[in-house]
Amino acid sequence: MSLLVVGTVAFDALETPFGKRDKIIGGSATYFSLAATFFTQQANLVAVVGDDFEQSDIEMMQSRGIGTEGLQIKAGEKSFFWSGRYHEDMNTRDTLVTDLNVLADFDPQIPDSYQGCEYLMLGNLTPTVQMQVLDRLKERPKLVVMDTMNFWMEIAMDDLKKIMARVDVLSINDEEARQLSGEYSLVKAARAIMAMGPKFLIIKKGEHGALLFHGNEAFFAPALPLEEVFDPTGAGDSFAGGFLGYLAATGDTSFENMKRAVINGSAIASFCVEKFGPERLAELTKKELNNRIQEFVDLVQFDIDLD
Amino acid sequence: MSLLVVGTVAFDALETPFGKRDKIIGGSATYFSLAATFFTQQANLVAVVGDDFEQSDIEMMQSRGIGTEGLQIKAGEKSFFWSGRYHEDMNTRDTLVTDLNVLADFDPQIPDSYQGCEYLMLGNLTPTVQMQVLDRLKERPKLVVMDTMNFWMEIAMDDLKKIMARVDVLSINDEEARQLSGEYSLVKAARAIMAMGPKFLIIKKGEHGALLFHGNEAFFAPALPLEEVFDPTGAGDSFAGGFLGYLAATGDTSFENMKRAVINGSAIASFCVEKFGPERLAELTKKELNNRIQEFVDLVQFDIDLD
Repeated sequence: MSLLVVGTVAFDALETPFGKRDKIIGGSATYFSLAATFFTQQANLVAVVGDDFEQSDIEMMQSRGIGTEGLQIKAGEKSFFWSGRYHEDMNTRDTLVTDLNVLADFDPQIPDSYQGCEYLMLGNLTPTVQMQVLDRLKERPKLVVMDTMNFWMEIAMDDLKKIMARVDVLSINDEEARQLSGEYSLVKAARAIMAMGPKFLIIKKGEHGALLFHGNEAFFAPALPLEEVFDPTGAGDSFAGGFLGYLAATGDTSFENMKRAVINGSAIASFCVEKFGPERLAELTKKELNNRIQEFVDLVQFDIDLD
Repeated sequence: MSLLVVGTVAFDALETPFGKRDKIIGGSATYFSLAATFFTQQANLVAVVGDDFEQSDIEMMQSRGIGTEGLQIKAGEKSFFWSGRYHEDMNTRDTLVTDLNVLADFDPQIPDSYQGCEYLMLGNLTPTVQMQVLDRLKERPKLVVMDTMNFWMEIAMDDLKKIMARVDVLSINDEEARQLSGEYSLVKAARAIMAMGPKFLIIKKGEHGALLFHGNEAFFAPALPLEEVFDPTGAGDSFAGGFLGYLAATGDTSFENMKRAVINGSAIASFCVEKFGPERLAELTKKELNNRIQEFVDLVQFDIDLD
């Protein structure tokens, strides 16, 4: 089942209480596709980088089954660069540098070979760019998942609402859900946001797990209690990659199967935070992933007979 | 199976974004015993009040199966009074007034009829008072659960450590677990705290659920996503009452049964926050409770076949 992701491929500089990296591959589409290809044979990428991007990084992606035909390389320009520093609690971070570079005028091109994709991830980008991608696909995918952030709610709410009305699943964090809906209660926020278009809503709560809403149904996946969160960068995008990669691999978009997809996404995300950037995902094995999914089962499984 | 709780019985003044109550019955032992008697026939109370306490409140307790022989009534003195105001997010509150009154020199007396109790809850009190209760029981109960708060960690850590070394289960919130252990990671905090004595540790995370630790095992119970949290007062004590009431009713202190107890405690706590003070617990039916436990099952239940 073909999967397409549009998002950022970038360089990050990261600083956490455990150390730092001055230049490491990052970006939403990178984490997403590394996670997704754990489940599905191929994830095609639409993104843009500068000519500072390393051929070895592109080859790493290809070796993982990531299709890079839609990765534009702009001669004489620099890749998107983000630098951040995490606080002791790992839940808050300061953005030190955001250099848009090639991202400033990103014009997403869809290679012909990508047409007909069934599963589409619209990573966090300008809403108009997300819209262009959907417009440039000749057939609407079977399932469209989208991410966004509070920044777009502040400066491009009208565009954001237009694209939201056209997607199936919105995946955002709790703070964003509250800002988008104006509701503090996540139950009320979910209802308000689903009324804007998405039939499914995922609210990511970081170390507190994730909620999946659909109509009047709700499902909760815990985050695994971890000894140490080393670097949270990319956890949300890895989650989305595991989620949609699992759906693409199974070809089943029922609510029951989405629950499994949320657990798989949570498991992948729990590895992502164990090392810097995508380092842990790059070395992850299928056996480790299955063992961790079993830990999720053990963590929440109980057996109650009701009178 | 006999259950004894020592804690506070008090008057509270509460203010939330939804309204206020100037004088409402409260206190840890009140919430605990109202929740516990949903499961077990009788919960005996050791606490102290002033002669401002209403006979009708004592009769309400007795009608619920709460044993009040150990409720001291001090003539010419006033009951413990606490007043608090909750912020919009309901996770933070300001204490406006704390009048210890009769609690200042509380000397817990154990009626002879309470001796031989099998399940003991040491509610949040001065650690030396908790110690007195344990010392005054001729036989050590089968299971001793204890609550405490950061205030005692700051002013009476030595006493706190002495009583902690003698209990089976400690039930505290995430902030308290971090302060007590000096560890931010709850996994590390749990290990450090269990090394201080308790074989089981419950870490309550409010709207983010609760974790149960034992040795290398962990269990997570979500909080139900609620439309509205009306008043969080007493949620933690109701949780403990449901937890220990369920264990007392089933007579089974295995880790597997503690998981069920945590779910039952979470279900009771989810009702407690729906109205002011103990108003919702007072009107709760067994059928409503069972329906809610089914909601917990539905919220976390998933079915994954691992390769």
